[in-house]
Amino acid sequence: MNACILAVGSEMLTPFRVDTNSLTVTEQLNAIGYDVRLKAVVADDADELARVVDGALAWADLIVITGGLGPTEDDVTRDAVARALGTPLDIDERIVDRIKERFARRGLTMAAINRRQAMVPRGATVLENPNGTAPGLWLERGGTAIVILPGPPREMTPMLEAVIRERLAPRTAGAGLFRRVLKITGRSESDVDAHAQPIYGRWLSQPVPISTTILVALGQTELHLTARASNRADADVALDAAVRELQDAFGPAVYSVDGRPLEAVVGALLRERGLTIATAESCTGGLLASRLTDVPGSSDYVERGVVCYSNRAKTELVGVPEPLIAEHGAVSEPVALAMAEGIRSRSGANIGIGITGIAGPGGGTAQKPVGTVVAAVVVEGETRVRTFQFIGPREMVKFQAAQAAMNMLRLMLLKTER
Amino acid sequence: MNACILAVGSEMLTPFRVDTNSLTVTEQLNAIGYDVRLKAVVADDADELARVVDGALAWADLIVITGGLGPTEDDVTRDAVARALGTPLDIDERIVDRIKERFARRGLTMAAINRRQAMVPRGATVLENPNGTAPGLWLERGGTAIVILPGPPREMTPMLEAVIRERLAPRTAGAGLFRRVLKITGRSESDVDAHAQPIYGRWLSQPVPISTTILVALGQTELHLTARASNRADADVALDAAVRELQDAFGPAVYSVDGRPLEAVVGALLRERGLTIATAESCTGGLLASRLTDVPGSSDYVERGVVCYSNRAKTELVGVPEPLIAEHGAVSEPVALAMAEGIRSRSGANIGIGITGIAGPGGGTAQKPVGTVVAAVVVEGETRVRTFQFIGPREMVKFQAAQAAMNMLRLMLLKTER
Repeated sequence: MNACILAVGSEMLTPFRVDTNSLTVTEQLNAIGYDVRLKAVVADDADELARVVDGALAWADLIVITGGLGPTEDDVTRDAVARALGTPLDIDERIVDRIKERFARRGLTMAAINRRQAMVPRGATVLENPNGTAPGLWLERGGTAIVILPGPPREMTPMLEAVIRERLAPRTAGAGLFRRVLKITGRSESDVDAHAQPIYGRWLSQPVPISTTILVALGQTELHLTARASNRADADVALDAAVRELQDAFGPAVYSVDGRPLEAVVGALLRERGLTIATAESCTGGLLASRLTDVPGSSDYVERGVVCYSNRAKTELVGVPEPLIAEHGAVSEPVALAMAEGIRSRSGANIGIGITGIAGPGGGTAQKPVGTVVAAVVVEGETRVRTFQFIGPREMVKFQAAQAAMNMLRLMLLKTER
Repeated sequence: MNACILAVGSEMLTPFRVDTNSLTVTEQLNAIGYDVRLKAVVADDADELARVVDGALAWADLIVITGGLGPTEDDVTRDAVARALGTPLDIDERIVDRIKERFARRGLTMAAINRRQAMVPRGATVLENPNGTAPGLWLERGGTAIVILPGPPREMTPMLEAVIRERLAPRTAGAGLFRRVLKITGRSESDVDAHAQPIYGRWLSQPVPISTTILVALGQTELHLTARASNRADADVALDAAVRELQDAFGPAVYSVDGRPLEAVVGALLRERGLTIATAESCTGGLLASRLTDVPGSSDYVERGVVCYSNRAKTELVGVPEPLIAEHGAVSEPVALAMAEGIRSRSGANIGIGITGIAGPGGGTAQKPVGTVVAAVVVEGETRVRTFQFIGPREMVKFQAAQAAMNMLRLMLLKTER
């Protein structure tokens, strides 16, 4: 079953914005077996939208259109679809009444312009919008279903879920595409691909075939596995086996098999073991603490953090001896270790992390170029320190440094149990 | 001049990835006067891509296609364009030689499969790719120019710039779309729109017309002004006047007229005035310090930060008296003030900021629901404290809290001069 997703709105054709509704729509359609073959952003222009809809009618089993249902002249979706189908538009007085009621509940009178939102291509079924004035529409033409939804995600998402449950899922009889995302950190993309390819290469010819895509994100490599199966249970069996094969191949480098970010994985390990953590950051400037505290409930294990950007702060906040900085430089393994040990002992937390480095663009030297980062982790009695060389601009260096430090901690925590 | 942008690649039709090349292409095309009317992501399928290209040939002055130029069977762009134009594909032996050379420089032999990358629709001009094996292609058919570029941004961007400079800009004779982005914080979207609409409504009928779009981003509202002019000088005159009108209307609520984020604007004010800053964060967990240190050179004015997540850390790190927390609660104006004053005096910085709040999802009460945030700023002698009520999930509350605290500081710094 082939689907086409159209987002209507000239603002998404500027350099500043992307259409993100289509990601939600894709995920939901994939889950009931639709393959999205084309997605497009179309200007607020009835002729152009009608032309694109007309083109998609020739091949798509389903066309989902979001946006362009507001009350202004710029909102062309109703017109364009009616034109593509060669159907007149009628005013649906029940919709007018509902919009009037909606305004009345807030003590307002409906403006005349809102009557446009009650225009319906003849033959369409109206889809209720519990969160806004613009109703959605359902139409069929030949073998193609057309679903029209408003643009704001808060309105679009629940309406999409309803139309999938009530109208689309029954057509696809449970077959679908089911996905897993494995996240790997601490190994290069080419290394990951070289070791993964011989494994996932075999999956395509299984009874439940799985296709695999490798995506490189900052500080991690992702393996996206997509199984095509007639039901979720069959897909789960195949995907579970595939995930286990990759976990055997990559061992603890796989940090997530359910899409969770590294800070959530590390947080869960800390929670399970009843450990608390304190951080001392220089070049990451608080990003490590901020990522750790992005996880709901992290106040249970994040005791404190310090950002000791100046050398004076390193001495005052975590007790790094001035002569140590003078001898080795602020970006050095002895200083990172002193930061980790200092914040751990002063805070009384079980774990201390120290990060110091050169995020750039200034401050690099021949010995310590921009991107040099030293991370130290102290977990109760055990201590580890590593020097990394990251590439990219300032914010990328900060992210990779926080990622590497969290991964060092993760590997230490896993080892304490195994 | 109407343009269509096509991104080829099934991986961009999953729920995990968006096409971002089209933003770069849009920006560059707008600057030379092309209006992007449609952009689409097409699967790796020659039939479908050929159909979309064929549709765009009917109306577009320019079609830019990115991706699908690799050496594998999945790379269908060359085939699809040849099919849409009804043109055969020939092997260009000069391209084969260049690819061989490229491999040889790295001590490798070209694989036979790479010959596919030397296939050229008859009549096409080859566009050099200095950063990869896949050359680009330039074709014309009727009134439509077709530009085909490889997908990786590192390869695509310089090739796009060259083709714009050498082939497209000369056609448009300097006319173009020119943009400014104003960023406003501390006022609601509807408030901004109500005050801005009477102003920007007049600009459409000027000799150099300016269209305006309001975009709501987290913690800020953006006004995007687009002028259509025959040259940059005329556009600059009109846009400068428009920006001044909005600055007069909104005063210091406009924090940026050149796209800079708030942390860069605040950083520049600190640098100009020779002031240093130290932060004490609870609910933002280090995000404020991290954003301040995202700005290159921020080590000149960021002295230190502390993340005092636990009450004990608030007392130990910034000297908040325990009885103050017991009496007012950790999320209270007296505690935020004590944090700001404590970090300022302990660090010796000129400025101290304290933030405490409830980021959620847990921890809210009837008196202090999730999203309650108190920020305090101490600038040498002057002190301000405010309580905010933010909405959204944890990460959104954190971002808005950091944004609000930076804006309080910005307004205090501006006032010290005026």
